[in-house]
Amino acid sequence: MTQLMTVIGGDARYLELIRQLRKLSNMKITLVGYDKLEQGFTEVEQMNFYELNPYELDIVILPITGTDNQGNVEVIFSNKTITLTDDWFSRLNKSALIFSGMMNDYLDNITKKHGLELIPLLDRDDVAIYNSIPTAEGTIMMAMRHTDFTIHSSKVIVAGFGRVGHTVANKFSALGAKVSVAASSIHDLARITEMGLKAIPLNQLHQFTDYCDVLINTIPAKVIKKESIQQLPSHALIFDLASIPGGTDFKYAEQRGIKAILAKSLPGVVAPKTAGRILADVIKQIIEEKGVI
Amino acid sequence: MTQLMTVIGGDARYLELIRQLRKLSNMKITLVGYDKLEQGFTEVEQMNFYELNPYELDIVILPITGTDNQGNVEVIFSNKTITLTDDWFSRLNKSALIFSGMMNDYLDNITKKHGLELIPLLDRDDVAIYNSIPTAEGTIMMAMRHTDFTIHSSKVIVAGFGRVGHTVANKFSALGAKVSVAASSIHDLARITEMGLKAIPLNQLHQFTDYCDVLINTIPAKVIKKESIQQLPSHALIFDLASIPGGTDFKYAEQRGIKAILAKSLPGVVAPKTAGRILADVIKQIIEEKGVI
Repeated sequence: MTQLMTVIGGDARYLELIRQLRKLSNMKITLVGYDKLEQGFTEVEQMNFYELNPYELDIVILPITGTDNQGNVEVIFSNKTITLTDDWFSRLNKSALIFSGMMNDYLDNITKKHGLELIPLLDRDDVAIYNSIPTAEGTIMMAMRHTDFTIHSSKVIVAGFGRVGHTVANKFSALGAKVSVAASSIHDLARITEMGLKAIPLNQLHQFTDYCDVLINTIPAKVIKKESIQQLPSHALIFDLASIPGGTDFKYAEQRGIKAILAKSLPGVVAPKTAGRILADVIKQIIEEKGVI
Repeated sequence: MTQLMTVIGGDARYLELIRQLRKLSNMKITLVGYDKLEQGFTEVEQMNFYELNPYELDIVILPITGTDNQGNVEVIFSNKTITLTDDWFSRLNKSALIFSGMMNDYLDNITKKHGLELIPLLDRDDVAIYNSIPTAEGTIMMAMRHTDFTIHSSKVIVAGFGRVGHTVANKFSALGAKVSVAASSIHDLARITEMGLKAIPLNQLHQFTDYCDVLINTIPAKVIKKESIQQLPSHALIFDLASIPGGTDFKYAEQRGIKAILAKSLPGVVAPKTAGRILADVIKQIIEEKGVI
């Protein structure tokens, strides 16, 4: 039986995501919030939000950002406002699957209230690891753009050895940078050493920043503090990959004249096609597991 | 005894080169063609070209490009024209060492005529290999900028396995690209295979381009011909790193709508500091070997 899927809003990544999902058999896809797009997606039906019948939908795909706290959906390819109200959610079928990139309080509360299943894709371990690849490539691109030296032979410190930190450390090392990684757990410090990189206990970070060319933070907590920044050489750069507001004392970095950049959504910037495909692959896998198709 | 060195013209790379050479003891350095530079190099004396006494000079450093065919020197940091005439060369000391980046007919003829030693730095094997590092990083940056997919998992073909091709293949492979290298000699084809990359006999290149995302040419000869370009998928990119005019049939690429970019002087663009240091290190080594200092 044909299932109904609707994609409501989204950015450049979603163009590839739609292209991939269109290949699913027994799936009718409609797009909402893509009316600024000229042609190219004519094979997929576009609708206005008010034309959707929520109770008919089997799968709803929301943008990476989900909604804001008033239920407004990010629409890059439309000028129309789309708001997912309490009433709208109440009219969804209880068996509908709702995907978004990130979870937030609004979505969490409203889906729980109506007994709906919401799957925040970026929380999944596999998505986070796959996404860390374009994130690391984007960081490499930034490092190349903002420095006048090669990554090869440069001294790089990565703070954090989670899904992003691990990949970033790998990639910079592969390009010939001298990479140190600051982490807390003995497990991580041992693994970092095993990889041939220099392991730094996170609470001693400030003792190692005096020879650092590029400092990359991946930890969503205030870990790049004044004491670490003040030891950096004046040409050093800080890239903060942790979600807003990052983990860097940006105010102090600015006072010291150290360039510190809070990077946002690198996968969407550097490789929207790959990022869209990553999401599509996981959505396909989940709906197959759930037996929806 | 103090030696006299003059740097005549040059680009951003030469700022680091000068900074490095300034550290030499028993060397007095003067700069010609840097009058647009505000401060910063006040420690090094600036002169007008007509103030130089050629017969006093022990070491002359010309720009990467050497001169044009009329003896004009490239000056990025000055509006004044500097021309190295036959008369000027005739007044140089026979024992003077002349460095330039590249050799050309004008310099070759004129230095031979006056029995002067000219050292074209970029012809040296070590300089070419060191320079291939920023060249490869610049290629990576271009690939990230011009594609909407990650380098990781992309299919890359490198034409040529010389000093640049070898490094480019290494770096893209290190980032997780699926790299093939097209070469002619059995030596190279065996080494490429040993490195875990796919070896393609150069004359069969066109049989392998149909699944290629990024085609990188490093061979200074017409090797990326119509027959290879017509097999490329429409999203593919060509980067040509060979010196002007490159080795790609750019006209045919344009007809087919395939983006083909002739990259120039990537080390100077992506890592002028590293590129300047590479040159400075070799100059230092040569003048030490020659016993000049």
